[in-house]
Amino acid sequence: MTPVDELIQMFGQQHVLTGEDTDSYTTDWRGRYQGAALAVVRPGSTAEVAELVRWCVAHSVPMVPQGGNTGLCGGATPDSSGKAVVLSLGRLNAIRSVDTDNDTMVVEAGCILQSVQQAARDNDRLFPLSLAAEGSCTLGGNLATNAGGTQVLRYGNARDLVLGLEVVTAQGEIWNGLRGLRKDNTGYDLRNLYIGSEGTLGIITAATIKLFPVPVAQCTALLALESIDDAVVVLSAARKGFGAALTGFELIAGNCLQGVTQCYPQQRIPFEGPSAQLPWYALLELSDSESAEHARERFEEVVGATIEDGLVADAVIAENISQSKALWHLRESIPLAEKAFGKSIKHDVSIPVSRMAEFVTTTNAALQQRFPGIEHVIFGHLGDGNLHYNVARGDAYTEEQLLAMQDDIYEVVHDSVHQFGGSISAEHGVGQLKRDALPRYKDPVELALMRQIKQTLDPHNLMNPGKMLAT
Amino acid sequence: MTPVDELIQMFGQQHVLTGEDTDSYTTDWRGRYQGAALAVVRPGSTAEVAELVRWCVAHSVPMVPQGGNTGLCGGATPDSSGKAVVLSLGRLNAIRSVDTDNDTMVVEAGCILQSVQQAARDNDRLFPLSLAAEGSCTLGGNLATNAGGTQVLRYGNARDLVLGLEVVTAQGEIWNGLRGLRKDNTGYDLRNLYIGSEGTLGIITAATIKLFPVPVAQCTALLALESIDDAVVVLSAARKGFGAALTGFELIAGNCLQGVTQCYPQQRIPFEGPSAQLPWYALLELSDSESAEHARERFEEVVGATIEDGLVADAVIAENISQSKALWHLRESIPLAEKAFGKSIKHDVSIPVSRMAEFVTTTNAALQQRFPGIEHVIFGHLGDGNLHYNVARGDAYTEEQLLAMQDDIYEVVHDSVHQFGGSISAEHGVGQLKRDALPRYKDPVELALMRQIKQTLDPHNLMNPGKMLAT
Repeated sequence: MTPVDELIQMFGQQHVLTGEDTDSYTTDWRGRYQGAALAVVRPGSTAEVAELVRWCVAHSVPMVPQGGNTGLCGGATPDSSGKAVVLSLGRLNAIRSVDTDNDTMVVEAGCILQSVQQAARDNDRLFPLSLAAEGSCTLGGNLATNAGGTQVLRYGNARDLVLGLEVVTAQGEIWNGLRGLRKDNTGYDLRNLYIGSEGTLGIITAATIKLFPVPVAQCTALLALESIDDAVVVLSAARKGFGAALTGFELIAGNCLQGVTQCYPQQRIPFEGPSAQLPWYALLELSDSESAEHARERFEEVVGATIEDGLVADAVIAENISQSKALWHLRESIPLAEKAFGKSIKHDVSIPVSRMAEFVTTTNAALQQRFPGIEHVIFGHLGDGNLHYNVARGDAYTEEQLLAMQDDIYEVVHDSVHQFGGSISAEHGVGQLKRDALPRYKDPVELALMRQIKQTLDPHNLMNPGKMLAT
Repeated sequence: MTPVDELIQMFGQQHVLTGEDTDSYTTDWRGRYQGAALAVVRPGSTAEVAELVRWCVAHSVPMVPQGGNTGLCGGATPDSSGKAVVLSLGRLNAIRSVDTDNDTMVVEAGCILQSVQQAARDNDRLFPLSLAAEGSCTLGGNLATNAGGTQVLRYGNARDLVLGLEVVTAQGEIWNGLRGLRKDNTGYDLRNLYIGSEGTLGIITAATIKLFPVPVAQCTALLALESIDDAVVVLSAARKGFGAALTGFELIAGNCLQGVTQCYPQQRIPFEGPSAQLPWYALLELSDSESAEHARERFEEVVGATIEDGLVADAVIAENISQSKALWHLRESIPLAEKAFGKSIKHDVSIPVSRMAEFVTTTNAALQQRFPGIEHVIFGHLGDGNLHYNVARGDAYTEEQLLAMQDDIYEVVHDSVHQFGGSISAEHGVGQLKRDALPRYKDPVELALMRQIKQTLDPHNLMNPGKMLAT
């Protein structure tokens, strides 16, 4: 019996895919990584995941866990050897239980994020994790990569939304750690060790996640600013004035907004005259537990003070939900409107908020010196210190030239990030994309500790090999 | 040259204590554990900590890291062999830097928690970690044990307040992980692995901690309740109505308040008639970013609705700061007033909030069945699912009898906690006190993973041996 026959016998014909049927699982969605698999296996329960892992260990077959396959770093794509099994968690998609009094929900790894959000909402609760791929990414993938998204400022990263985990270890044992406790000091924090480990230490099969009250009202404002320095002071004022009600603080470069209106003429920048031409804008979101009127009043008071202090050149506060949506739509259209600038080289970096302005000035200058005329396309989550610092060809280069410069651009930007005490991957993870850059920037003691942990928990290097750490 | 002579040569006579000078370091502050040490060494810098660790490794000398020696589980007390070095972090007490724009501060492990809070306040920021021992405990100890305290509902446990760490590994290498980043997905979460590991994997020497805006106003209310079930519904309503402004929700049994007024006649329960005789009370704290008036209005609206719904029998909302303080003082006097009940057997447990009422009923009944007439002294942080479920002798037993029953009482309570999906140590850790109970309640796969990690990172078992895990 061939290995694939064995798998079919164990998991059933329709849950073991081979040949062309594996195509959508062996390529990442951006089409950057193309791999091959012995088979894609879709176990139907945690016990079946454990059975599959034990089979893989017995046969020395590498495993690549996969959720919605929406990752941006090739972390869920097998290598091209065709030796690995892609372990798709898609069938583990039950909401196992909801506990509204405890504000928790037990969810399986293969649940689509949007379904998780909906299940919370059906119970008059909020599960705040929210990101562009939410219609197809899975909670398991979100946890494997410690996803960020738009609500980090208030609710934290994915890891901050989890109380307990169920994990199949690299030996195929099941750790039942699905605790719904906000306080538990009885041992090492294995939960956070598995979260963000990109499937290289074990397989998360379910999680106990935190739920929150649904805000009564949300209100949005767009501020026009002269500088990032001003934006940083306004952020402090907003944190002080709104407390935890401040749920969004996005920074947007003027050329990004102009790119949006150029691509989508039905959208407009809600400012006239010089305010429409400023270099920076900030989008603020306030989530209120009281009322829409109260949110607006608070906005007027706190933003009003920043205008009086000369920190904000101009401000538009949404009068109603549709105006709020229009402002967010401007922000959310930026990645799509980037085609106005042609292909761009993207960076997902974080910097201490206090060094953001200097980082942008310094990095822009370093790039201009090396690649004169290159265009900067910068936006991001200022409240989290997270910039999508992208680089477009401008009028100076062709697309081909830009792509040929890609690795050098990465290095200039990441070297600068490192110099400013930042991270070369704020929210997307490492995967294959940044694996080989890691040793350049990571503390060697830290990297050695990571290798020791990998070696201990996965001694045969079968769990997603070649991701995060080179083999 | 003797080993102690070598240490004196390396660190200076006044920083190497021996004989009687070690007494206050080799006994825990509650006087439950009495150990002995080869010496107490007080290194003056991270480099010196690393040097000391390397010396200990070279000489196979166990190390017991110690901060303010205020732990409740004997985690910082050496065994009685006299072979260990107590590594006191007290001289590493610098606030290395404050970054108000980034809302972070870099603090050394030996800083007294109160000094850390003060340094934040001096910069118009809040460091919210707050607990009874804050005048003498150190940040390093708080992180080693992942301390809880009174602000967990809003700000989380100690681990949630940390962005980066500096750690001396069990090999005496220095990991510089003092990142001030809110997003960083470039590898395994070593930060959370060291936090809460009680000095068994390495020594935390400094941390980058998060700062928050200082609330503009705080307001407190005391509610009189018929049952824990009602308290749980009120908690949900308060979370919904106040959002993240709800910073405290303490549950107090009626006999605890009566014990306080009995011990301290100058304090009084602020209710008259039947409301003063109810079985449960809840203390709520609201932290407002707007004004004291606004906080009070919100209280009246949200608490008013729970009274109308018949969930709350009676309520007192503090009119001013001194009334707020009087209400908190009632709560904070409970541990001291427990002497009104004589010595008690204490439990620091957590339970899912939704199962709290059933847990108390079931556990009370189990204890009464086994030890008729025993008295229950129950209070805790309901919002975190954390109960201080204490057991006093009542009129039925002498103190001696109670102490003889101690281990059986632990077992009845902890078995019940386990049955309700709870934790036998919510915020105090394991140390020596609960080490041998752990295998009874911990998932064996989890315990095996913990042992593997310990074995890898500290292969010679020199880092705080015998704490958390039996050797």
